[in-house]
Amino acid sequence: MSPKITTELLKQLRQVMKSPKYVREPVQAYIVPSGDAHQSEYIAPCDCRRAFISGFDGSAGTAIVTELHAAMWTDGRYFLQAAHQMDNNWTLMKMGLKDTPTQEDWLVSVLPEGSKVGVDPFIIPADQWKRMSKALRSAGHDLVPIKENLVDTIWTDCPQRPCKPLLTLDLSYTGVSWRDKIVALRSKMSERKVLWFVVTALDEVAWLFNLRGSDVEYNPVFFAYAVIGMNTIRLFIDGDRMMDPAVREHLQLDSTLEPEFKIQVMPYGSILSELQAVGASLLPKEKVWLSDKASYALTEAIPKAYRYLTPYTPICIAKAVKNVLETEGMRRAHIKDAVALCELFNWLEKEVPKGTVTEIIAADKAEEFRSQQKDFVELSFATISSTGPNGAIIHYKPVPETNRTLSVNEIYLLDSGAQYKDGTTDVTRTMHFGTPSAYEKECFTYVLKGHIAVSAAIFPNGTKGHLLDSFARSALWDCGLDYLHGTGHGVGSFLNVHEGPCGISYKTFADEPLEAGMIVSDEPGYYEDGSFGIRIENVVLVIPAETKYNFKNRGSLTFEPLTLVPIQTKMIDVNLLTQKECNWVNDYHQKCRKVIGAELERQGRHEALQWLIRETEPLFRVQ
Amino acid sequence: MSPKITTELLKQLRQVMKSPKYVREPVQAYIVPSGDAHQSEYIAPCDCRRAFISGFDGSAGTAIVTELHAAMWTDGRYFLQAAHQMDNNWTLMKMGLKDTPTQEDWLVSVLPEGSKVGVDPFIIPADQWKRMSKALRSAGHDLVPIKENLVDTIWTDCPQRPCKPLLTLDLSYTGVSWRDKIVALRSKMSERKVLWFVVTALDEVAWLFNLRGSDVEYNPVFFAYAVIGMNTIRLFIDGDRMMDPAVREHLQLDSTLEPEFKIQVMPYGSILSELQAVGASLLPKEKVWLSDKASYALTEAIPKAYRYLTPYTPICIAKAVKNVLETEGMRRAHIKDAVALCELFNWLEKEVPKGTVTEIIAADKAEEFRSQQKDFVELSFATISSTGPNGAIIHYKPVPETNRTLSVNEIYLLDSGAQYKDGTTDVTRTMHFGTPSAYEKECFTYVLKGHIAVSAAIFPNGTKGHLLDSFARSALWDCGLDYLHGTGHGVGSFLNVHEGPCGISYKTFADEPLEAGMIVSDEPGYYEDGSFGIRIENVVLVIPAETKYNFKNRGSLTFEPLTLVPIQTKMIDVNLLTQKECNWVNDYHQKCRKVIGAELERQGRHEALQWLIRETEPLFRVQ
Repeated sequence: MSPKITTELLKQLRQVMKSPKYVREPVQAYIVPSGDAHQSEYIAPCDCRRAFISGFDGSAGTAIVTELHAAMWTDGRYFLQAAHQMDNNWTLMKMGLKDTPTQEDWLVSVLPEGSKVGVDPFIIPADQWKRMSKALRSAGHDLVPIKENLVDTIWTDCPQRPCKPLLTLDLSYTGVSWRDKIVALRSKMSERKVLWFVVTALDEVAWLFNLRGSDVEYNPVFFAYAVIGMNTIRLFIDGDRMMDPAVREHLQLDSTLEPEFKIQVMPYGSILSELQAVGASLLPKEKVWLSDKASYALTEAIPKAYRYLTPYTPICIAKAVKNVLETEGMRRAHIKDAVALCELFNWLEKEVPKGTVTEIIAADKAEEFRSQQKDFVELSFATISSTGPNGAIIHYKPVPETNRTLSVNEIYLLDSGAQYKDGTTDVTRTMHFGTPSAYEKECFTYVLKGHIAVSAAIFPNGTKGHLLDSFARSALWDCGLDYLHGTGHGVGSFLNVHEGPCGISYKTFADEPLEAGMIVSDEPGYYEDGSFGIRIENVVLVIPAETKYNFKNRGSLTFEPLTLVPIQTKMIDVNLLTQKECNWVNDYHQKCRKVIGAELERQGRHEALQWLIRETEPLFRVQ
Repeated sequence: MSPKITTELLKQLRQVMKSPKYVREPVQAYIVPSGDAHQSEYIAPCDCRRAFISGFDGSAGTAIVTELHAAMWTDGRYFLQAAHQMDNNWTLMKMGLKDTPTQEDWLVSVLPEGSKVGVDPFIIPADQWKRMSKALRSAGHDLVPIKENLVDTIWTDCPQRPCKPLLTLDLSYTGVSWRDKIVALRSKMSERKVLWFVVTALDEVAWLFNLRGSDVEYNPVFFAYAVIGMNTIRLFIDGDRMMDPAVREHLQLDSTLEPEFKIQVMPYGSILSELQAVGASLLPKEKVWLSDKASYALTEAIPKAYRYLTPYTPICIAKAVKNVLETEGMRRAHIKDAVALCELFNWLEKEVPKGTVTEIIAADKAEEFRSQQKDFVELSFATISSTGPNGAIIHYKPVPETNRTLSVNEIYLLDSGAQYKDGTTDVTRTMHFGTPSAYEKECFTYVLKGHIAVSAAIFPNGTKGHLLDSFARSALWDCGLDYLHGTGHGVGSFLNVHEGPCGISYKTFADEPLEAGMIVSDEPGYYEDGSFGIRIENVVLVIPAETKYNFKNRGSLTFEPLTLVPIQTKMIDVNLLTQKECNWVNDYHQKCRKVIGAELERQGRHEALQWLIRETEPLFRVQ
């Protein structure tokens, strides 16, 4: 990797920061955040403005350019990468280190008195704006919205915003029509006495209208906004895609519908002016519901007194609870995904000893097997295919510079998943193709105990996921070990592989209580820098639990694994398991054998079936 | 209980709410909170203004009186009691029920436009003022501070503020002199760049100066404030007690000291004017440190730009970590406390079958045995002595109307503790003096499993207590059971039995990470309304744990029980315990026998010793 030369670019940016063509008054600093206008996790090439201006293309980072300085804030995952990719015009601000100033403090320290700091109001979320603006104002500076994105003005070969065809999902996939979803949303709006709801997150638009797209990688979404009134539906979306007869039919654009279900299609770019018109039309006490993560521009379109902001929208919460058809789809997707992984691991078992399989080859092979499955769409995230020390890099993605060859001497960690038309998968298995050491087995077994402790946990209805996080760590803690990431995240149904509002983490963010039908991952791990990484991840469905008693009639919940891929018994030190844990493993493997075995059989994949049968032999404790 | 007749009182209060003698402009509503000016948990009789005006004397509740209404907000513990104690001038607002309005919403619904709502600015904490004031303002009303407490103006026989003699604690109890505590505090102040620190919580004043008092029940504190500057120490305290030679010697009031350790003693009532003078003297960037729970009056004395507010003060955090001498004192106190309880339980075992022991008699007997121990000062809270259905009332305190006779047919729950000059205790044991049912034993054993899971937990340095809460519930959850309170609270060292900033709760309040030397309670329970209550509580000390590995060199922690009172083995279904849990019980009982046995022997309490030996026989699993 050689750094991007940014001298000329920064010169140009500093010019437009003073140009009356773009700014009413010159700005002394300009902030280039990572995100897009929807706060998406994965962004389109046209939104990679921070990577364009700096060269640093990691997933997290904020650039700030002043007359004299250019600085980049990023976290520990990216210190090395950012240092390699940026030239010496840039100062790397290592977040999480004690001496690293916050963006606000740094700005205050370098700016001349009474400065103006510019930012694109469409990219910065309202809550961040508020914090930053307050800090700057208290030091005598001003945060100002710059309508035109200044990076875009100098990005001459900026790629076009993607505008790919849409996929319509019928009731057999979604279980609920978009009309019924609108009805349910309006009823939530009535409850809270709001008149309008603004949909800004891309997965929320996709879910609401039972549509999918491919405008960004991994997340099957498309660029759009929606504004739902009690009697109106406005969808802001660009391109020919709305000419597609299947889409027109799906949205009933050409039918004579009751007016309250008639969708008005408007240009993507007109959201702001339309929302400003809504804002201007409001009577006292009328409210507009927005996520508190919506952009500053859209939030400001509604006068403050009329805003109703919540951390999670009613769509986010409804979307998290999967209905019967979505759950069945998720089950089907996970069966197909398991078939692909049985094929892969069987193949690796034969090929790894030859010394010809690299991390990239293994990742490609996994994709190849998945793509053979029905309704495969794409991967659900960049495959983490890592062997030996690379496994200890939690967000590793193999690239030619780091690509390692799998061997019989190292642990291999594969964290991968796919989008199928009926569901989204995300699974991690940690394998050894030779003979693991006693220490590797010991660590693996602690991680497994944590995985089981969460998966088999029974807890009252209304419990928040963060209350389960310590169960995953207890066996590791007993030996002085731990892992520095959360235990699980919400998973979408043929949607984003990471979604709110639930999760399992020691970070007590505002997670919503778990309820039956929610789907999360269960993925404890252990990482030894420079040596190996271990993670065992299943996607699990929240289901009602049968219990002996029923305190206050609250009811109980537990998890059902949707992922059905064998956990390598070779890595387990069975004598560290309790009998209950041992039974859990055997029951799980029994189910893998039955369900995935039948599908392997049906698909005529006999060799993989033999592998599955071998890998699901029951364990016995010798104590 | 017959309700207090408040018609005349309310008439008088409504008059002073309009009287120009007390209010600049008439107020249309007046708020009477529970607390005192220090946000104390236990308050002096002169501060029981809410009880005086309403008749309701539970520990939590807020009264609001308007021209036409009088309403009382309290929580589920007190619905019955409040309904009994208040006459029908009052409306009971049941907090926690769905349809109960908040105080703000209720005020907005009943007040005429543009109303003024009065409150004593010394009683309302700044953070509550802020929330309430904002809500009222957005509805067109104003929250206004009324200097003179309006309840006091009509409370003709209001008791005097207590002003009892002080107790000085020497180094053998405190481990650190008040001078060294001031030095450490000033160093924290320098770190945060603040010039002044205002001590408002009574236990913080007591801890800082190594003094104790008895102005309120149960908490060994005295009414005082302190303001610490970098070169000055001001102690605001009333009465002759500063004339006591022991106190003058302890505080070196008559010595020639370096000026920065010279304590200026000022009247308790002069805190506001002194603080206003400090506020007026500040130069730009000079800061004053206050708890965000300090009263509105004191907080407002410092202009906003100069305030440095934190949820926990440096004294609160330093006080939580006990030094070696404090820990030794706590150990001694717990040994004496265990002696008293062995005597009590031995006595109960003989007396209960006679049918003459009531809850009140048992509580008195417990106090009698405790008072025989060296350095006994008083109880640390009102004894919860409850049998049968009364045990299910979590904050029960026996009164003649509810007093039940202990019998061989019911479970008996005793939650009690004391203040000794060397430490504070808090212990709960649940006993059966006949033959418990299989179901009672089953529930008891789940609670015990939870108690052990917390007590034996090993966790990384830096872990917050709320991450351990689910360990206490897991065995109950597995069977569909639970308890509706937190698992533990911080415990002071001859100070408040409930103290911050640490604890073990599913409520993720801003708890500080656990560290070695902190002391908390471990008290899971199970309560069956109308039948019985079970709770097993030890006070435990956070200590370093030895572990096989040491991830990132962080070190690990665990707990050591300070409470050494047998857990009734008759109540345990040993076959529900794992071998590890069974060993824990046996090891614990071994330690009780050794440590408490030696002390019983020393004190010549032979019958209680025999009881202890019987109660600490090892358990054996038959599986």
